[in-house]
Amino acid sequence: MVYAVGLMSGTSLDGIDAALVDISGKNEQTSVTLIEFLTLPFDKETLKRIRQSLSLEESTVEAICSLNVELGEQFAQAVLAVCEKAAISIEQLAFIGSHGQTLFHIPVKRDHLFPSTLQIGDPAVICERTKTTVVSNFRERDMAVGGQGAPIVPYSEYVLYRSEKSTRILQNIGGIGNLTVIPKAAKQEELIAFDTGPGNVIMNELCLHFFHVEYDKDGNYAKQGRVNEALLEELLAHPYIKKAYPKTTGREEFGKQFTQSLIKRWSLSPVDLIATATMFTAQSIAIAVTPFVQGDTELIIGGGGSYNQTLIAMIKTLLPTVNVMIQEEMGYSSEAKEAIAMAVLANQTIQHGQGNIPSATGAKKSVPLGSITYY
Amino acid sequence: MVYAVGLMSGTSLDGIDAALVDISGKNEQTSVTLIEFLTLPFDKETLKRIRQSLSLEESTVEAICSLNVELGEQFAQAVLAVCEKAAISIEQLAFIGSHGQTLFHIPVKRDHLFPSTLQIGDPAVICERTKTTVVSNFRERDMAVGGQGAPIVPYSEYVLYRSEKSTRILQNIGGIGNLTVIPKAAKQEELIAFDTGPGNVIMNELCLHFFHVEYDKDGNYAKQGRVNEALLEELLAHPYIKKAYPKTTGREEFGKQFTQSLIKRWSLSPVDLIATATMFTAQSIAIAVTPFVQGDTELIIGGGGSYNQTLIAMIKTLLPTVNVMIQEEMGYSSEAKEAIAMAVLANQTIQHGQGNIPSATGAKKSVPLGSITYY
Repeated sequence: MVYAVGLMSGTSLDGIDAALVDISGKNEQTSVTLIEFLTLPFDKETLKRIRQSLSLEESTVEAICSLNVELGEQFAQAVLAVCEKAAISIEQLAFIGSHGQTLFHIPVKRDHLFPSTLQIGDPAVICERTKTTVVSNFRERDMAVGGQGAPIVPYSEYVLYRSEKSTRILQNIGGIGNLTVIPKAAKQEELIAFDTGPGNVIMNELCLHFFHVEYDKDGNYAKQGRVNEALLEELLAHPYIKKAYPKTTGREEFGKQFTQSLIKRWSLSPVDLIATATMFTAQSIAIAVTPFVQGDTELIIGGGGSYNQTLIAMIKTLLPTVNVMIQEEMGYSSEAKEAIAMAVLANQTIQHGQGNIPSATGAKKSVPLGSITYY
Repeated sequence: MVYAVGLMSGTSLDGIDAALVDISGKNEQTSVTLIEFLTLPFDKETLKRIRQSLSLEESTVEAICSLNVELGEQFAQAVLAVCEKAAISIEQLAFIGSHGQTLFHIPVKRDHLFPSTLQIGDPAVICERTKTTVVSNFRERDMAVGGQGAPIVPYSEYVLYRSEKSTRILQNIGGIGNLTVIPKAAKQEELIAFDTGPGNVIMNELCLHFFHVEYDKDGNYAKQGRVNEALLEELLAHPYIKKAYPKTTGREEFGKQFTQSLIKRWSLSPVDLIATATMFTAQSIAIAVTPFVQGDTELIIGGGGSYNQTLIAMIKTLLPTVNVMIQEEMGYSSEAKEAIAMAVLANQTIQHGQGNIPSATGAKKSVPLGSITYY
């Protein structure tokens, strides 16, 4: 076992997630234990500069050049902070896996643009400040073999959740819902991953509109409402629900505009609208999951939606033969999941092992991901 | 001995230099033989997009994201082409050292900008297309230990040119000019290297503006013009010329904007402007070289500017006690020099050996340079 740190800095710009893990083995034999986790928020000035470099209008080559190093320094600080919190010295670290901050992603060719992805956060800076070898730029290699560079976490999910006894379906409920199916005793190429539809996005928009709160805490509003069957029927007729996978969706499809149109056309009480939206998410998940239920099947739910008790109760009712649980019930941390995945990918790369799942990204083959900056 | 390819794509945007070498050993024991060399010109559309991404006004995060992959594809083609020319299969290659295309360079902190450098040309793409391990992003690590990230070739020059009998000053004239002083029987820490100022950049911008050609072939335009002493005086008063080394400059300082301002403010004939710019480059080199002339001293000139006969004649006149020659007169290939240096640096990194010269870059210590993308 060696200590390693995984770093993730997501598109939500909440800050830098750092997961300190104890890791050993390779491929299916990988074993990982989370030791410590923290999120280092970006300082305000840095956040302003990230937003600038994310913008088509405001980004410049100069700002991106500088931000690469600025973020490298902050990523290094997150590593130092998580080690300090765990009372582990950086000399004990074997390596760091750093996702980097995504500035842009072009999944498929359009016009004169090449399929490509841009993550920054200088690995040389992280390496020197932490005196530790860094693996970075995981997504580029998957795209170089025809993949979309996303999703990037399924390999780690495969390693951490694969079971000889049951089929495990990992359902993440963020703004959008997405799942990874790991059949019983699966080989890597048998994994299936796609977006299930809306996660919390419609519920959140309704909570913001009616109650000026960001989300339905514990599902309390939904609990007070009644599901309107006519509206639910309309929602379930959305073409995305019936579409065959692989498929991907976004806030463009189920976000503010979509929700505002519901509010205008359906004169229901706020809590009834929220209850119905909650059932829509539950149903869209149940519909996506059902074809994969075979023998012992566990549905493991993570992301913000896993704390919505009304939603979880609905899903349990809709899938009576499935063992539905949330990440924490399995002893895993939902918030640390992506940062842990970066340590798992780095562990593969250091040992010249593959890290992408072609059936999830569309890549032509399995490849090791990322570049290694040795200390 | 193993085969390796070094790739260089300079600020002059002439194309991609690819040097196929036979290399063995490490540190002072490195032995390198050039097998084959070629320059793959950029296609016009790519060149347009590079220029766009070099520009503070026109660059966008989207264009940079895409160009990274577009250049990776072209760098890979240069590798395949040089191997084909030498009738060596890519399976025989041990590794590739790729400098990348520099988009921006911030040598020292200013305002809210971090010292940083940005080279693109996706190593994952090069790696997959050539089925070969790639070492890339050499400059970042030197900057992470306080260096200016430039010059990057001195380590290779030290290995290839060190002499027991004479002081050798290697002057490269690319877009920017840079030199390396290797005192007689020098130890590594006695090397001195810095950018001398503009190389061909101003001349090239003038040629493009007035004659729609990329450069002053053989110095023919400069030969027809007369040096304007008043303009030369203004140019030589540029603070960079008097600045103490270590120092580094770039197109930001002497590029398009700088040249456009000269054209606007000085109503001289095109050939007089080109002649004066040529003399400015010659003078800036002579001023930089003079303090190091001691006993037998050879000034060995390489880069595109070494073929500008008017420029070479000017330098010879300005340095009468120095044995001025061009790389070819020493039996080395001038045009291949920087590409060979990338293979030497990659050879070091693969073996965890250092690649920067702290006395040249100002770095606090010697470090291995670059990140490794293993095939």
